[in-house]
Amino acid sequence: MKAALLAAVVLMTPLSLFADPLPSWNQSASKERIITFVENVTDPNNAAYVTPDERIAVFDNDGTLWAEQPVYFQLTFALDRLAEMAKADPSILTTPTLEAASKGDLQAIAEGGHDALIEVLNASHAGTSVEDFQTSVADWLETARHPDTGLPYNQMTYQPMVELLRYLRDEGFRTYIVSGGGLHFMRVFAEDAYGIPPEQILGTYADTTYDSSNGTPVITKAPGIAFVDDKEGKPINIERTIGRRPILAAGNSDGDFAMLEWTTAGDGPRLGVLIHHTDAEREWAYDRESPIGKLVDGLDKGPDMGWVIVDMARDWDRIYTGGE
Amino acid sequence: MKAALLAAVVLMTPLSLFADPLPSWNQSASKERIITFVENVTDPNNAAYVTPDERIAVFDNDGTLWAEQPVYFQLTFALDRLAEMAKADPSILTTPTLEAASKGDLQAIAEGGHDALIEVLNASHAGTSVEDFQTSVADWLETARHPDTGLPYNQMTYQPMVELLRYLRDEGFRTYIVSGGGLHFMRVFAEDAYGIPPEQILGTYADTTYDSSNGTPVITKAPGIAFVDDKEGKPINIERTIGRRPILAAGNSDGDFAMLEWTTAGDGPRLGVLIHHTDAEREWAYDRESPIGKLVDGLDKGPDMGWVIVDMARDWDRIYTGGE
Repeated sequence: MKAALLAAVVLMTPLSLFADPLPSWNQSASKERIITFVENVTDPNNAAYVTPDERIAVFDNDGTLWAEQPVYFQLTFALDRLAEMAKADPSILTTPTLEAASKGDLQAIAEGGHDALIEVLNASHAGTSVEDFQTSVADWLETARHPDTGLPYNQMTYQPMVELLRYLRDEGFRTYIVSGGGLHFMRVFAEDAYGIPPEQILGTYADTTYDSSNGTPVITKAPGIAFVDDKEGKPINIERTIGRRPILAAGNSDGDFAMLEWTTAGDGPRLGVLIHHTDAEREWAYDRESPIGKLVDGLDKGPDMGWVIVDMARDWDRIYTGGE
Repeated sequence: MKAALLAAVVLMTPLSLFADPLPSWNQSASKERIITFVENVTDPNNAAYVTPDERIAVFDNDGTLWAEQPVYFQLTFALDRLAEMAKADPSILTTPTLEAASKGDLQAIAEGGHDALIEVLNASHAGTSVEDFQTSVADWLETARHPDTGLPYNQMTYQPMVELLRYLRDEGFRTYIVSGGGLHFMRVFAEDAYGIPPEQILGTYADTTYDSSNGTPVITKAPGIAFVDDKEGKPINIERTIGRRPILAAGNSDGDFAMLEWTTAGDGPRLGVLIHHTDAEREWAYDRESPIGKLVDGLDKGPDMGWVIVDMARDWDRIYTGGE
């Protein structure tokens, strides 16, 4: 009888008490602080307890959940798509910028600045239905491979972060992406890659138009950018879309500073997490001087604000979900 | 032993098999069609089965979940707030329109058209933090009473619709508001009134600004209107924010037409529901000629598109949640 009772207790004990919820994280202060935070806010007997409704965790994507070097993966998609569209109809390359972009000439786009980028985005992202656009992203993910790792882009997700997302959901959190990347682009892979459904993805977006004049309503992506989900745009979008202040925010660049600042300035227990790219061997090492993922404010002010600064080289046992 | 088994089966049978999930609805074709739809999409053995992830139901608010006569309740709030602000500081009434509005002169606003409305909204809604604004809405709901019913505005919710929302959630749906009303305004009462949390409320909004220069980050409502969540704006906002096409949509005016059209044009089982205000005795009777809640297209085309047209006088046993 006692054995049966013990068995029942064991069966009813959450798995998290036995298994390491973050196996790809090395034992470190970072890991310890994250786990302690989660244990505190989920323990009804702890003063830091937070009801499940308010357990909102927000994550940047590029450089936080997956890699972002040598350029944002969505830009690689844009160039690849432009090249493919030009193969079918070369007349779409109406400007020197688009000509250069279709040949993968990143330098030309960098020199053209914001206008060149918009030109490339418009040609590769706009004027198509959301459905067709997302099919093209799915097709690209099937075939495209990263030039350095040879991996499909959606396998260059960070395994330690995939585990953190799952751990948080297991503990009653809702996990959101809040990224400067494109909303429609991310929705194609985020559910499979991270377990994050479409309605929990916030990103940069263009306007869309609704047209039912031919009998079947279609929503089409318009040119330009209507909302940039970066810097102050992140807390603004969170407030507008979620309507609650998160209790955990994770990012990796100064584009995430306002999101972490707003999150951790709230009352009660809050956690800010910054991923510091320190691993030139297994990934890339970059921060203050990097044109992509530039991180200055976070390093200067984050520690004093109590944020966990994750040292990728030190804290992560494994980097990518894909690969051996 | 057999009795125990029977008891166990009874205990494990969903309550919905015994109790009427929509007690405030009269027996009618409308009620039957709604219940049949829900039973079909939630039955794994039915060809119309829909997985819980895709069980998204969207509801207009004004005229669909609560009353909207003689004017949208949010406009009444705006006038009341303006009057209260002017009591503390009369100098805020800088124009004849604001003067008139602070005296509750709806005629003057109607004559001033869109510009007058924006002027009133700016004076009553903008330039304040979201938190302070929402406190003012909560205070107003505590004290304000509807001129005709004498009820608090948040008790003029439609009990049959409150039951429908609960029934859908009990059956694994997620229920959203998609309203031309103000996002921040609705979030104050929608969770209590309808069981709909902030992240499931879509509405019209002004821009907001993020400012942390004084050390404490504040999100403030800016003047103007950045997005109108009405007509084509509704499917556009649903696609952008939820990223899935709903399987059920309910509205009451031509502002909801595109939302119902887009919803019911999707593949598989879909349900469009239009609330037709036919009850001059217990509520108001209005449709084609009404400046508020104008309903022409829905009446002309809805039946052919298979939408359920709810006849309030005939189909509802009770109207308001509040009152006796």
